[in-house]
Amino acid sequence: MTENAPNPAEFTEFRPEARAPRGFADKRASQIAVERRLIAKVSEVYELFGFEALQTSAFEFADALGKFLPDADRPNVGVFSLQDDDDQWMALRYDHTAPLARFAAQNWDALPKPFRRYAFGPVWRNEKPGPGRLREFMQCDADTVGTDRPEADAEIIALAVAGFRANNLPTVLKINNRKLLNGLLSALGADSPAQQMGVLRAIDKLDRLGLEGVELLLGGGRKDESGDFTKGAGLNDKAIAAVLGFVAAGRDSAGGQAERGAVLEKLAAVLSESPEGQAGLEDLSRISTALAGLGVSEAEAIFDPSIVRGLEYYTGPVFEAELLMETRDEKGNLVRFGSVGGGGRYDDLVARFTGERVPATGFSFGVSRLASALALAEEGAIQPVRGPIVIIAFSESDMGEYFRLAADIRAAGLAVEVYLGRSGMKAQMKYADRRLSPAVVMLGGDELANNTVTIKDLDQGRLLATQITDNKEWREARPGQVTLPRTEAIKHMKSIVNA
Amino acid sequence: MTENAPNPAEFTEFRPEARAPRGFADKRASQIAVERRLIAKVSEVYELFGFEALQTSAFEFADALGKFLPDADRPNVGVFSLQDDDDQWMALRYDHTAPLARFAAQNWDALPKPFRRYAFGPVWRNEKPGPGRLREFMQCDADTVGTDRPEADAEIIALAVAGFRANNLPTVLKINNRKLLNGLLSALGADSPAQQMGVLRAIDKLDRLGLEGVELLLGGGRKDESGDFTKGAGLNDKAIAAVLGFVAAGRDSAGGQAERGAVLEKLAAVLSESPEGQAGLEDLSRISTALAGLGVSEAEAIFDPSIVRGLEYYTGPVFEAELLMETRDEKGNLVRFGSVGGGGRYDDLVARFTGERVPATGFSFGVSRLASALALAEEGAIQPVRGPIVIIAFSESDMGEYFRLAADIRAAGLAVEVYLGRSGMKAQMKYADRRLSPAVVMLGGDELANNTVTIKDLDQGRLLATQITDNKEWREARPGQVTLPRTEAIKHMKSIVNA
Repeated sequence: MTENAPNPAEFTEFRPEARAPRGFADKRASQIAVERRLIAKVSEVYELFGFEALQTSAFEFADALGKFLPDADRPNVGVFSLQDDDDQWMALRYDHTAPLARFAAQNWDALPKPFRRYAFGPVWRNEKPGPGRLREFMQCDADTVGTDRPEADAEIIALAVAGFRANNLPTVLKINNRKLLNGLLSALGADSPAQQMGVLRAIDKLDRLGLEGVELLLGGGRKDESGDFTKGAGLNDKAIAAVLGFVAAGRDSAGGQAERGAVLEKLAAVLSESPEGQAGLEDLSRISTALAGLGVSEAEAIFDPSIVRGLEYYTGPVFEAELLMETRDEKGNLVRFGSVGGGGRYDDLVARFTGERVPATGFSFGVSRLASALALAEEGAIQPVRGPIVIIAFSESDMGEYFRLAADIRAAGLAVEVYLGRSGMKAQMKYADRRLSPAVVMLGGDELANNTVTIKDLDQGRLLATQITDNKEWREARPGQVTLPRTEAIKHMKSIVNA
Repeated sequence: MTENAPNPAEFTEFRPEARAPRGFADKRASQIAVERRLIAKVSEVYELFGFEALQTSAFEFADALGKFLPDADRPNVGVFSLQDDDDQWMALRYDHTAPLARFAAQNWDALPKPFRRYAFGPVWRNEKPGPGRLREFMQCDADTVGTDRPEADAEIIALAVAGFRANNLPTVLKINNRKLLNGLLSALGADSPAQQMGVLRAIDKLDRLGLEGVELLLGGGRKDESGDFTKGAGLNDKAIAAVLGFVAAGRDSAGGQAERGAVLEKLAAVLSESPEGQAGLEDLSRISTALAGLGVSEAEAIFDPSIVRGLEYYTGPVFEAELLMETRDEKGNLVRFGSVGGGGRYDDLVARFTGERVPATGFSFGVSRLASALALAEEGAIQPVRGPIVIIAFSESDMGEYFRLAADIRAAGLAVEVYLGRSGMKAQMKYADRRLSPAVVMLGGDELANNTVTIKDLDQGRLLATQITDNKEWREARPGQVTLPRTEAIKHMKSIVNA
């Protein structure tokens, strides 16, 4: 583009600014490549577990999504919603579970039961965007609908573990059960919703505050380092001891992670008075047996009574996946990934439509976040993708020859393009550099006359260039550059690309 | 679910109907499998041509989409749009080209130029849905931005052809040039927009009405079989002859498709008076040379002067892909696919943002439609995907054993699941049938005691069942069923799955 380029009259009136709305991002090839690799491996694993692919559409009726029913004043709280021609509110899905519940309710009679499906695709959240917090992001889900068996939960856990394993991502699935928490609360006699919530919030902080912090939050309250005071749940000493015994059941005597069987034994003592707690332990015991059969190690899936998630949503076992990788980003900063996915049993979701309880359990993770972890684990960061081989365009009259060579190179399975701008040699070399091309190919007059091809290995050229200081020497050495008979040229290109 | 299932009180108040909004569809595994296969092959081909993947987000600012600026009264005409928190209108993309123009304008300085990218993903159209007309569908695009070379158009054509070829879909790319049509109109002296539009509409009907029909529409008008009269463009006889000569240039003397070079020669005679027409022919001549170099045959890409598309949009060469397959659907009805994609040169799109013309050219196709064609070509229709091997759940106490066997089978690369419902043998067999499982596996008391596995080949069982009429004989023969030592079992399952 030059200053003298035509400036069409029709465009002078209104010029929109070229930018995406806040919280929406463009994905380039390097990011896409990692995400595709991750999804391909996960899909393969999930299908080995008998889960079939399902894609629901982006829109659902807002009442089908349920959780975020738009009201008249602010139709856009939490979800992106709009009115259809017939004035009904539609909303973009905010996860893959709500659409699954709608799909299952709609097609229940025709589905094989239990129904297992996995899904990946974008979800949309109409929230305040921030660094690393987009309003559109990719999620991947696997769910089993139509069985209340704890073994179905175990299978979901094993499938999640297998997905991470296939991507060589060191993770631990932390498992708890809503029924244990309910059992604990009833054993404590904590009847008021406010006190119950206070207890659960305190338990949820074990990771960050340790047992001492949790103890304060269960009792009178806790002052943090900045001096801010958090009111406690107001339990008496006996009740506090019971809760601490409950959360401590996850640890062995040395403070490390206890084995699954040992955790259940300790919890049995704490929850002996509570029928719901006993039922929760029975679930976990069966999950434990199934996990052992499925080859999920003690290091890959643990019972952690301090896991509190989705109180309004989950009805039984809950899972949280933690990535164990600690690594440094390009700037040398320590990156702790922490939670990369979660799930659990939600037996009430389909009932919204049908009035009848349909048990369901599932696991989901954010694709982009896990892809970043994968790139970090494999190569320290998302690596730029290599561009194609670039055939230099010397002469208008030889374009047909360049295309013929390009077709031959492609037939050998190598990515290649003829430079199609209108700039000279220097800009063409710069273009190949920007694309991270492995090589440029020259088909000048000499080469055409002699049926040869000149190939410049750009990586080798860059490497050799660091060893040559003299400009004249450089031009004469032509680092990384060879001229070969046409019959040998593609083989040489292959060796460069595969180097 | 039974009549006696609990009916949670909280769900009795409001029960949304379980259905997707009109024009939105769920995709099941069989459809998804074909689309993934298609996209994987096309992506591989496009990357061989040096095109890089790009994903823009679903939302753009409505003013960036341009064509469908929402107005105050009806913000939803054509696109799905809504107002962001700051009252700005956002809209879901209706294709991949408008977001590309925004992306290119936004990142122009940092991009290698020419910039080649491909994209696939859903697009949304807020239109009246109908049979085969969804409001959300998947499109796949490839575009080159930043070069006015006709060779870039040729490359897009070759890439489209290579994409179809890789999927064994017999297609022809029909190529025309807006400049030829403009040259024709100015040579005719057809100056009024209404008359110009009348001429182009008449040309566009060549396929359906033949030369005679076009002749009537160019002159006084045409009455169709139902008696409806269409007013003609009102050209005089000499002008009509010129137009007919123009469209006839695509045919050889036998009425068949003329070779690319021959078409250009004939058109040169018709358009000798028009500088714009000559420029259009020069474009096509260079495209022809490039196509020959790229190995695109005369059968795969033709020059067809009757192609009229996107008059408001395209500024140079235009392409239309026609699928040549004629086949019958399950009901024996003839299916003609016709147009399955198109594209062309659009040099004004980025200028909307920058005020400066950035030449661009591209091709796009609808993924679901082409996937249907692919399934039809390969196997007559989209085939249901096979389910996993199903391990029958006989006994609660042996669940761990079933899972252990499942893990072993998965480790061998076979999809398998333990039946996890709570129904008996008959329902479990029915489940495996519904999933189209290749086999069921039984691990009963005898098998566990003897370290054996019983495997029933369901396909073979169904086949043999047709040959057995006696019920007793059937039960004794156990068609397709074998009991094997555990060490040989997985090998046998593999042979069943791969049969």
